[in-house]
Amino acid sequence: MKPVTFPVTRKPWQELRDAKLAERESKIPDEWRIKFDPEPTNLMSLAQNCGLLTPRELQITENYDATSLLAEIAKSTYTSLEVTIAFCKRSAIAQQALNCLTEIFYDEAIERAKWLDEELQKTGRTVGPLHGLPICLKDSVNVAGYDSVVGIAAYAFQPERENSVIVDLMLKLGAVLYVKTNVPQSMMVPDTDNNVFGTTRNPIHKEITASGSSGGLAALIKFRGSLLGIGTDVGGSIRVPAYSHGIYSIKPSSGRLPYHNMKGYLEPGAETVGVLCVNAPMAVSYRDCEMLMRVIAETEPWLYDPSCQYLPWIQPKPLGRPLSLGVIRFDGEVQTLPPVTRALDEVCDKLKAAGNEIIELVLYKFQDISDNAVDFFTVDGGEFLKSQLDITGEPWSTAVANGGMYPCEKKGISEFHAYSSVRAELQRAWLKYWEATAQRTKSGLPVDALILPIQSFPARPDGFLIRSHFSRTWNLLDYPGIIFPVTTVDLRKDDIDMPPPLNDMDAKVQSTWANGVRERLQGFPIGLQLVGQRQMEPKLFQTMDKIASVLGNVQ
Amino acid sequence: MKPVTFPVTRKPWQELRDAKLAERESKIPDEWRIKFDPEPTNLMSLAQNCGLLTPRELQITENYDATSLLAEIAKSTYTSLEVTIAFCKRSAIAQQALNCLTEIFYDEAIERAKWLDEELQKTGRTVGPLHGLPICLKDSVNVAGYDSVVGIAAYAFQPERENSVIVDLMLKLGAVLYVKTNVPQSMMVPDTDNNVFGTTRNPIHKEITASGSSGGLAALIKFRGSLLGIGTDVGGSIRVPAYSHGIYSIKPSSGRLPYHNMKGYLEPGAETVGVLCVNAPMAVSYRDCEMLMRVIAETEPWLYDPSCQYLPWIQPKPLGRPLSLGVIRFDGEVQTLPPVTRALDEVCDKLKAAGNEIIELVLYKFQDISDNAVDFFTVDGGEFLKSQLDITGEPWSTAVANGGMYPCEKKGISEFHAYSSVRAELQRAWLKYWEATAQRTKSGLPVDALILPIQSFPARPDGFLIRSHFSRTWNLLDYPGIIFPVTTVDLRKDDIDMPPPLNDMDAKVQSTWANGVRERLQGFPIGLQLVGQRQMEPKLFQTMDKIASVLGNVQ
Repeated sequence: MKPVTFPVTRKPWQELRDAKLAERESKIPDEWRIKFDPEPTNLMSLAQNCGLLTPRELQITENYDATSLLAEIAKSTYTSLEVTIAFCKRSAIAQQALNCLTEIFYDEAIERAKWLDEELQKTGRTVGPLHGLPICLKDSVNVAGYDSVVGIAAYAFQPERENSVIVDLMLKLGAVLYVKTNVPQSMMVPDTDNNVFGTTRNPIHKEITASGSSGGLAALIKFRGSLLGIGTDVGGSIRVPAYSHGIYSIKPSSGRLPYHNMKGYLEPGAETVGVLCVNAPMAVSYRDCEMLMRVIAETEPWLYDPSCQYLPWIQPKPLGRPLSLGVIRFDGEVQTLPPVTRALDEVCDKLKAAGNEIIELVLYKFQDISDNAVDFFTVDGGEFLKSQLDITGEPWSTAVANGGMYPCEKKGISEFHAYSSVRAELQRAWLKYWEATAQRTKSGLPVDALILPIQSFPARPDGFLIRSHFSRTWNLLDYPGIIFPVTTVDLRKDDIDMPPPLNDMDAKVQSTWANGVRERLQGFPIGLQLVGQRQMEPKLFQTMDKIASVLGNVQ
Repeated sequence: MKPVTFPVTRKPWQELRDAKLAERESKIPDEWRIKFDPEPTNLMSLAQNCGLLTPRELQITENYDATSLLAEIAKSTYTSLEVTIAFCKRSAIAQQALNCLTEIFYDEAIERAKWLDEELQKTGRTVGPLHGLPICLKDSVNVAGYDSVVGIAAYAFQPERENSVIVDLMLKLGAVLYVKTNVPQSMMVPDTDNNVFGTTRNPIHKEITASGSSGGLAALIKFRGSLLGIGTDVGGSIRVPAYSHGIYSIKPSSGRLPYHNMKGYLEPGAETVGVLCVNAPMAVSYRDCEMLMRVIAETEPWLYDPSCQYLPWIQPKPLGRPLSLGVIRFDGEVQTLPPVTRALDEVCDKLKAAGNEIIELVLYKFQDISDNAVDFFTVDGGEFLKSQLDITGEPWSTAVANGGMYPCEKKGISEFHAYSSVRAELQRAWLKYWEATAQRTKSGLPVDALILPIQSFPARPDGFLIRSHFSRTWNLLDYPGIIFPVTTVDLRKDDIDMPPPLNDMDAKVQSTWANGVRERLQGFPIGLQLVGQRQMEPKLFQTMDKIASVLGNVQ
């Protein structure tokens, strides 16, 4: 049997880019074209003001999360057809304003919505728990008949032959698919920009990066061009964009959500070893993320996808005691900027005031973990990516060129084994570290979860290449992490100067908070990360429920 | 952080061998030395006849399986001390007759048994569900303070610093550890023979191989020098020895039993990728295998071992209908010899007569699977193993030299990725193949399990290097497989000539059944394999229970 290969188109990349952009342009109906002033930095009111959406369409797209909208569709308050048209229209506005889409298939979505409506009318029952809901996809999720360009020109005009398994399962559950969303070249840098589709904008402020790699997905969902989407995360790619847009996501442990037959930036097969990339939901509420994970688990995905482990969704028993949470305030390299510090302090204070226990922890072995993750990410030296770019003469994108990871030396099998050995030791060390927290809690049990930032700084202005260890740590360890917004940058409180920088990276991060720069971040959402033990997502959501009930404004 | 390394002793291998053999010899007390006639081919009555064991010790070692003996210890019918002494003595007899042991620690076992007895007396409660039971270990299971030579002289006199995680958990559960057992050089060939400890004999017939790689374990358990042991399986290493001795084992899916900090024949880290080697119980009953797996699951091993998945032991609901079993009669290359054919026919007939359904299947994609497994097994070209042998000037063992796998070309990271891609496709293909059986069952559900041989031939005479695809298929797919004995070779029924051979390997297998050769196999146990879907061991044991209730003589 031959390994999977990615078919390629051998033409100059500029030609492919132009043809691909023209094709995308052609998928937006003329009557959905809008005129708008390209000047405003904040594009969040565009959908209300552009005049394209009816009041009912505004209601559909703005008043619900996926869970509540599904309930309305199930009781026929709305048809799937009108819901689908509303989100197709709103996503078309988003595309015109934010450049967030790649593949568009409105016609097929509308056909499917009609069929779903007929089924519901005929049988009195929904096709499944996702009946009639439009769900958006990251470009790397394969949909048969459509390209998965993933920011590489050579993959243009090579429609996929088979759905990713997660697509098959969501269709079985009644979902409507309508768009795919933009990614960075390589999907390994935190700016959504590539030579085919260009740069995606953040709707909250056009000079703040949409981040990445699930940046198109986040911009679309923040704009409410979708309520729920499927992205991926191998180093922060679902969590950082969710954070940078003030929405919700969970990076599950590997083996929970199907990942077979996804399109990657690595040679086929590489996605099954090393640091495992995972599919991950992003949504306007955390309960939508939980719902998506639960309904997928109920399809028994391990019967369809070899990347899935046998992980039924087991609802934990009620806790019956206050939470014990570990808090991690410092990533080991970069000090948190004032709004991030404040967000964590405020949340810890509220949790403590409500009778919960907060245990101070550290980002144990952060440097070893970070180094080991980079070892895995660069195992092929970027050779495969380069080979795919070379087919069409495509250059590295700016972010990849400046990212410092590629090109580098390709490693051998013995190095790969050595990295794997280190990884297992780091995972074991963290199991012991977590277990040892039992000595410090009142209950004598280990902490329920960890609460920490996802990065030391608010959403990042364009052009600053800064990093944080709060994200990739949990990919290497394979622990699940939920992102939830808790406050916004408030310069009345946060306009304070920082202590002297600890190192070059710390200084670079502080430069994003310099007087005159920080003003752009006023009002930007600040979120936190809640991390659980490996594959224990149901318990993590239970903990999240308790935290949300204390904080009040988290949904 | 540095990768794990295996410390080595740099002396000529012959010197290390002699010292190691002398050390082992010194661990058997003089009063436990026996005189016996080395001539008999069958050594199964030696323990009864040698006069060393008291009637009570014969009763302890012969009348129970682990489950029932644990119950007797718990109610103080026997002390752990007398049970431990009985098995230490019987294992010493086994060692003298079969050369099955490597490390011996009777003194520590006896001390521990005393402590366990005191605890039980003091508290009225057992320390755990394995309270007081002597459990034997394959040489590759690390016990702090003792070598894990794994058939490589350079590892002699390098006591391990830390227990394998599975050892920690079994001790927590109350087990007594007393011996480690012999393996082949490399653990990748099916003959238990190495340059340090020599060859282990099969107690049923000394000219029939003990097989491997858990050959020392199987010989000891068959001899009832132990009731329960922990071995490993990456291509048949627990299942083939269990079959070759007419006892029970299960090769679980990876992630069920802890595997961290085991000693391997590969460079450290290699055990975490590719075809995953698993720890696996071997016992005198299948219910003991289930018990061991269940009690380990109840310790929540995923909290201690990064190789474990989050897999609670979920007892399935009663089936409430007859079984649907897929039967696989041909491995694609080698025809089954008459006693194996008869065993499978008889079992299928009995199951059908009891109202169960048998669906004819094939060993789907056996050649691709076998090739892919070999690709993984040879990924480092045997370079690491060779490097460890070279340290002491040790030669390849005969079985490894003739095995045809090593040395070969070392592969690169891109080949490794390609193998991983093929593997994922093969796993997906099998998920679809299994799912499609639903179209052929009366219930409309997929088959509950597969029933098939573990190899096409009875236990193998010495000196025949023959192969079968029935075993490694399930390692590559990571499906669990139980081995259970069902009948014995009966030349009154099985003394029939074979149809013409299909190929060279088939001819070689038939040569083990030639007139004048087959006579040695008279009375040898013949077992079968029951294979379930990945990580669904509780359901597999439920199926096994139903089969056992039909067959009657399976425990």
